[in-house]
Formats: sequence, structure tokens, C-alpha cells
Amino acid sequence: MTEMTVEQIEHFLDEVFPQRMGRIESVGEMSATMRLTIGNEHLRPGPRVSGPTMMGFADVAMYVAILAQIGPEPMAVTSDLNCHFLRAASGDHDIIAHAKLLKLGRRLAVGEVQVVSAADETKPVILVTASYVLPVKS
Amino acid sequence: MTEMTVEQIEHFLDEVFPQRMGRIESVGEMSATMRLTIGNEHLRPGPRVSGPTMMGFADVAMYVAILAQIGPEPMAVTSDLNCHFLRAASGDHDIIAHAKLLKLGRRLAVGEVQVVSAADETKPVILVTASYVLPVKS
Amino acid sequence: MTEMTVEQIEHFLDEVFPQRMGRIESVGEMSATMRLTIGNEHLRPGPRVSGPTMMGFADVAMYVAILAQIGPEPMAVTSDLNCHFLRAASGDHDIIAHAKLLKLGRRLAVGEVQVVSAADETKPVILVTASYVLPVKS
Amino acid sequence: MTEMTVEQIEHFLDEVFPQRMGRIESVGEMSATMRLTIGNEHLRPGPRVSGPTMMGFADVAMYVAILAQIGPEPMAVTSDLNCHFLRAASGDHDIIAHAKLLKLGRRLAVGEVQVVSAADETKPVILVTASYVLPVKS
Repeated sequence: MTEMTVEQIEHFLDEVFPQRMGRIESVGEMSATMRLTIGNEHLRPGPRVSGPTMMGFADVAMYVAILAQIGPEPMAVTSDLNCHFLRAASGDHDIIAHAKLLKLGRRLAVGEVQVVSAADETKPVILVTASYVLPVKS
Repeated sequence: MTEMTVEQIEHFLDEVFPQRMGRIESVGEMSATMRLTIGNEHLRPGPRVSGPTMMGFADVAMYVAILAQIGPEPMAVTSDLNCHFLRAASGDHDIIAHAKLLKLGRRLAVGEVQVVSAADETKPVILVTASYVLPVKS
Repeated sequence: MTEMTVEQIEHFLDEVFPQRMGRIESVGEMSATMRLTIGNEHLRPGPRVSGPTMMGFADVAMYVAILAQIGPEPMAVTSDLNCHFLRAASGDHDIIAHAKLLKLGRRLAVGEVQVVSAADETKPVILVTASYVLPVKS
Repeated sequence: MTEMTVEQIEHFLDEVFPQRMGRIESVGEMSATMRLTIGNEHLRPGPRVSGPTMMGFADVAMYVAILAQIGPEPMAVTSDLNCHFLRAASGDHDIIAHAKLLKLGRRLAVGEVQVVSAADETKPVILVTASYVLPVKS
């Protein structure tokens, strides 16, 4: 069971993170899937998707997975993010982020995100692990 | 001694990485400093500088430090990047990246980047360590 | 299909890494599972398993997964390792490492390792992602 | 100014972390230096110092830097640790860890540790960044 639906999360993000990348495809138990259609601002020559685009996209997918579990929390912020770049992602295809939370404590959430290209969804283009700090509720 | 001057690196990047963030302030022995003036696209509400902006900026500062040492190499790519977010960076001030290479091998370069806010340059806002893969020369 | 069996890898490691931790339970396509029975040298007060024990154990599990794919290679070395500590692991139980390779190139292998406690195998105690550098064959 | 002297920290660690590696050389403002004399249990063939030895040593150096700032706190635990392996460290020489805290908040401490070999203290053998979670005081 999740605390927020896809639609509720999108509305919430429109308020607190309007510049975000991508759209939510689904949320589930401790997980979320998002898709990003690549625009010029996301490109490096090739064209391929730029590293910062993919890291930022993975970051928001983690945030969405957390929101789905804990409800609308604007003060949850990234504490650390580790990214391994595995393969180039063609700029001609969408990228899809699969976020999975491995721990959701009172103060810290930790998860991993695999991003794939729509060109071949079996081969991750980046592997991210990240921690989010959650504010303490009074 | 460096292989490229600031001007030469800027020209090279205009060809291979035109969408990059920031401008180079200086390059030195195994090091580089860059500055980014914050625009709307870099913001989160607050306003503060977004995490992906800071990670991407640190990434290009590492690349510039590498170029300064090895000359124009378009095929050097980020292999992994680790980012700790230390403090919020106000969206009203420039951010400055100080990149330092700790290892420059034939195949792999590893360095760290500290990013500070022009509001208080004594307190890093993020700490990044990253590896770059260098193509083997024939 | 793997290049080496569990028995072959154990023999090879007896030569090149005799101080290693744990024993191999199985190897598969781009994966390996290992088990470690906790001894005094692995403990912190509690008793719980020490962080360095878990990081080192994850590291060797990655190496085993790589060996299973590429054959006996003593010169494959860890390039970077990132570890998130999720939960304490009781010193009274074995720990089990599940290593999965996400990329196996000519020069670089990248994978992730989830370590669980035999006390509750559903909850990872650490999440590791790591890169290994593979020597180029002549 | 530090909250604990080297001698006080060593005594405290004898209680809460008796299996630790190394000895403290000095502590300073947001920093600590430690030295480890290499024994058989730390070796890989070569002989060189094993990766887990170096990661564990960096981890305790971070903890010592934190203790020096906040006083005896047995419940400060590593949250994440990222390690880049730069060079082999000869098993015939001591290794020295230089830990520096970049942030010391109420709940989280973040720092970096450079480990060098006594054979050549100018060339780091590993670069570590890590976060520690600090328990909230009532």
C-alpha cells in the first residue's frame, strides 16, 4: 500500500519541484518507475543522454518512491548519491528509472535506482544508490 | 605545467560539450576552478541550487582538470561519481567548484571536487569524488 | 554458463587470496553467493558484525562473481567500492552475500552486492556497488 | 579545540572498539591522523595491504576525528562509505590515515580520509568519503 497515488505525487511535485525531469509511470510498495523523454537540454554529442541528466533523473525517482511511502514531505533531501555509469544511453530514446527503497527509517531512507534506455531495457545505463534524510516529525 | 590553457579548453568544450555549465576560472597542476552563475533552470524552491546542478557542475570541473593535464580528449567519460550533500546552496549566489586530481593513470583518472557557494567560500556545499575512464592511445 | 566451478574458484583463491573471508555457496550467470560464519575477529560490541568485515566480504563476493565469468585472473583489482550500511547484523548469525554483475566489459566490471543476515534474509544489512579493473589481455 | 585528547580517545576505544586497527598520532580541529603497522592479517600477496584493511582503517580514523569533536559517543555509526583505490600499498610499510571532517551537524557528520603509505606520503593509496549518523541527545 502506498500513501500517495501517482496523480497526488505529480500534483505535489508541481508545487515543490516544478523543474523536475520526467513523469511517473507507477508507484508500488517501496518502489517507483519514471520515464523521461529526452530533449535538447539533456544531450551530449552523439547524441547521447548526459551524465547529469541521468543522475538527476535517478535522484527524483528515489524521491518519488519515498513520497509514495511517507506522504507529501517537501523537506526530504538527498544526503548522498553514488552513480556508476555503465553504458551510453542514446539520445534518441526515452530513459526509464526503476527506484527501489531498501530501507525506510524514521530519519534516513536508502535505495537504489537502475536507469535503462527504452532502446534496450535489459541493460542498465546507470546504477545509483542514494540516501535521503527525512525530517523528524514532532 | 598544463597541456591546455583556459582559453583552449573553453574552445574545445564549445565543440564537444556545448551544453555545459559554468566557466573556467583557472587551471593548474592537476587542478581546476570553475564558477557557475545560477539561472532559473538550476533552482529548487527557496531558492536554492538543485542537487543535479551541483553534481553536473562538479563533473565538468573534473573533466576540465583532466583536459588541462592530457590535452583535448573528447572520449574521456565519467565512470563513477559519488556526491555527499553537505549544506544548501542559496540560489542567489554563484557556486564555485575546486577540482583536484589525485591520480592520473593511463586508463583511469580519480579526483575530488569541493563546491562552495560565493556566499561563504569556507563551507563546502557538496563533496564529490569521481573516476574518469581515459581511452587508450594507439 | 560460467568459466569456473565453485571448487575451481576456491582452489584459485587459496593461492591468490588465502586470507579471504567466507566460502562460496554458488555461482551463476553474472552472479555469486557466499556465506561467512562470524568469528571474534569480525565482531564489534553487541555483538554485531563490524562494518569492515561486511565491506570486505562484499568485495570478495564481487571478485568471485567476476572469476566465475572470466576465469582465474589474479590481477583483477577493486577500483572503487561504495557501501550503504542499512541495519546492524547480529554477531550470532552467519552473513550471506549476493553479488550480481551489471556490466562486464573488457576493462571494467561493475556490480552490486546485497549482504543479509541469516537471522532475517529478507532485510539487507549493507548495499554495496563496486567497480573492478580487469587487466587487458595481450 | 577538541573535546577529547588522544589518550582519552584511545581509552574510550579500548572499551567500545577493542578490535580496531592502528593507533592515533594526533587529533586537531575537525581532523585526526592515525598510523597502522601492517601485520600478516592485513596482507594480500605481493605483499600489499588488502583493500578491506585500508577501508576499515579509514573508517576508524573518521570515527576518531568525530570523537575528538563531540566527546565519547559509542552510538555514532557509519552510514555510508565510498572508497576509491588509487595505488597499491606495499605490505612492508606502515599506512597513515588523514581524516578531515567537512561537516559536523547534530545528526550527521561527513568527512574524507586520505590514506598514504609510509613509503611515499605524497601519493594517497585510497581516498574515502563517509557519513556517520550521530544519535540525538535528549
